[in-house]
Amino acid sequence: MQVKFVMTQLHFKKIIIFGVGLIGGSFALALRRANAVGEVVGFGRSAETLKQAQQLGIIHRIGVDVRVEVSDADLILLATPVGQMPAIMAQIVPHLGAHTLVTDGGSTKCDVVQHAYENFGVHVKQFVPAHPIAGGEKSGAAAAHAALYQGKKVVLTPLPENMPESVTRVQSAWELCGASVSELTPQQHDEVFAAVSHLPHLLSFALVHDISQRDNRDLLLSFAASGFRDFTRIAASSPEMWRDICLANREALLREVQQYADELYTVYQALEKSDAARLEEIFRVASGVRSNWTQNN
Amino acid sequence: MQVKFVMTQLHFKKIIIFGVGLIGGSFALALRRANAVGEVVGFGRSAETLKQAQQLGIIHRIGVDVRVEVSDADLILLATPVGQMPAIMAQIVPHLGAHTLVTDGGSTKCDVVQHAYENFGVHVKQFVPAHPIAGGEKSGAAAAHAALYQGKKVVLTPLPENMPESVTRVQSAWELCGASVSELTPQQHDEVFAAVSHLPHLLSFALVHDISQRDNRDLLLSFAASGFRDFTRIAASSPEMWRDICLANREALLREVQQYADELYTVYQALEKSDAARLEEIFRVASGVRSNWTQNN
Repeated sequence: MQVKFVMTQLHFKKIIIFGVGLIGGSFALALRRANAVGEVVGFGRSAETLKQAQQLGIIHRIGVDVRVEVSDADLILLATPVGQMPAIMAQIVPHLGAHTLVTDGGSTKCDVVQHAYENFGVHVKQFVPAHPIAGGEKSGAAAAHAALYQGKKVVLTPLPENMPESVTRVQSAWELCGASVSELTPQQHDEVFAAVSHLPHLLSFALVHDISQRDNRDLLLSFAASGFRDFTRIAASSPEMWRDICLANREALLREVQQYADELYTVYQALEKSDAARLEEIFRVASGVRSNWTQNN
Repeated sequence: MQVKFVMTQLHFKKIIIFGVGLIGGSFALALRRANAVGEVVGFGRSAETLKQAQQLGIIHRIGVDVRVEVSDADLILLATPVGQMPAIMAQIVPHLGAHTLVTDGGSTKCDVVQHAYENFGVHVKQFVPAHPIAGGEKSGAAAAHAALYQGKKVVLTPLPENMPESVTRVQSAWELCGASVSELTPQQHDEVFAAVSHLPHLLSFALVHDISQRDNRDLLLSFAASGFRDFTRIAASSPEMWRDICLANREALLREVQQYADELYTVYQALEKSDAARLEEIFRVASGVRSNWTQNN
């Protein structure tokens, strides 16, 4: 009996995905592969993408009327760009079933949480914010795959209004996708990712932009090798997405850029003075920390 | 007859390698695999490494007396850290055979060329500087492999004193290793690599050092993902080697850091003003250039 009870607990009869691209599509595929969901309904801005997602086995049906679909959904994933989330929240909130939970896949959390407070009203307890630490240069439904979240981290930033069992249930959905779930506050989340994700992206964009403005850029690029390749891989990321992330996490990111500029000035001074010991010390600390770091998400 | 003549031209009866690590060892292995060398003799500071190189089939013999070995060598490769090269140059120059050519594997060229002028005297015409654009985080004889230079670029920075046939002969050695050979002046070389290699290394070291100094560094590192992984791969590089490269190419690198700081300030200002259009423009240019760039070395 208990096994059966647990299975019922983990099972989602109906899930709605807004945005059936890499993040949303992979969530659906992973839950379907885990036999954890009865039906997946997709909404999105592009009829073509939705049709493709259906053909790829990501969604069972293309949703027509949000009001009808939302009322009996167990779980709704907002997997659109963050900029589109307020409008979707406003659209779904009046029709949420009493048991319907909502989560999201946004890369920043303070702004999403603010949108949630503005749009959910008393229903904000039904919204459990999440950030899956997964992705890649490729996007769209065709790039979605059931293993995207396998062994990856998902950060939940629960709200004081969430009931513990709501958080547990949203956590279980991400775990069924193969992810390892952690919790941070929205503020902690945005500070951590400003440092380890948003800043490196900005630095990488800046290097390639710098080189691209030079008269001899073709010569320079012709001699760029594997160090440049890896350092600048993230500079090929989506300009729109990263514009939005940078603006959404503006304050924390400005602090990070300022601190990095201070660090860079320290290195510059050591080099200017030909201070071999100081340079080696900086490089040695960095090399030691980087060599000992093991990616666990 | 002509085929036989070409084969004789390309063949090196005896090659001496100073420093039988990744760069020197791979050079020897590649030429041996190409059947382009009769005998490879190794010199180095560590008897253990030399013995290992012999066991790995990198060198035929461990050299005992530089004076004896150098006089009948066709080609000598200096594959030690640049700091050790002046002493080796001083040691070999008095004993060079009339036909002996010398090349090197140093990552900076103006300093190596200056050492050559100081040590070779009239024999500087026998020194053809080179920089193979290959390597990796691993070093040492055990990391050497015959395919290291396959499809990679090697930059020669010939001296006005070199005879054209000497440059051609050194070029042929690197080409026999599978490399594609280009020419730059030593100054051009150091400016190009300050921009596309030395600056990214310094920026990557700086980011990891910055994070490593923080109280919450373990939390930060636990959430770092694939963007951070690739951006900081080169921060795991050898501190001593990069200290030396930065100091050797100090002036060009200082200019690069200054220019990068200016670029970073531009990005900072756009973010501070929430200038979405400017941010997106910078990211779009960078993303386009990076996406269109194909590594060809």
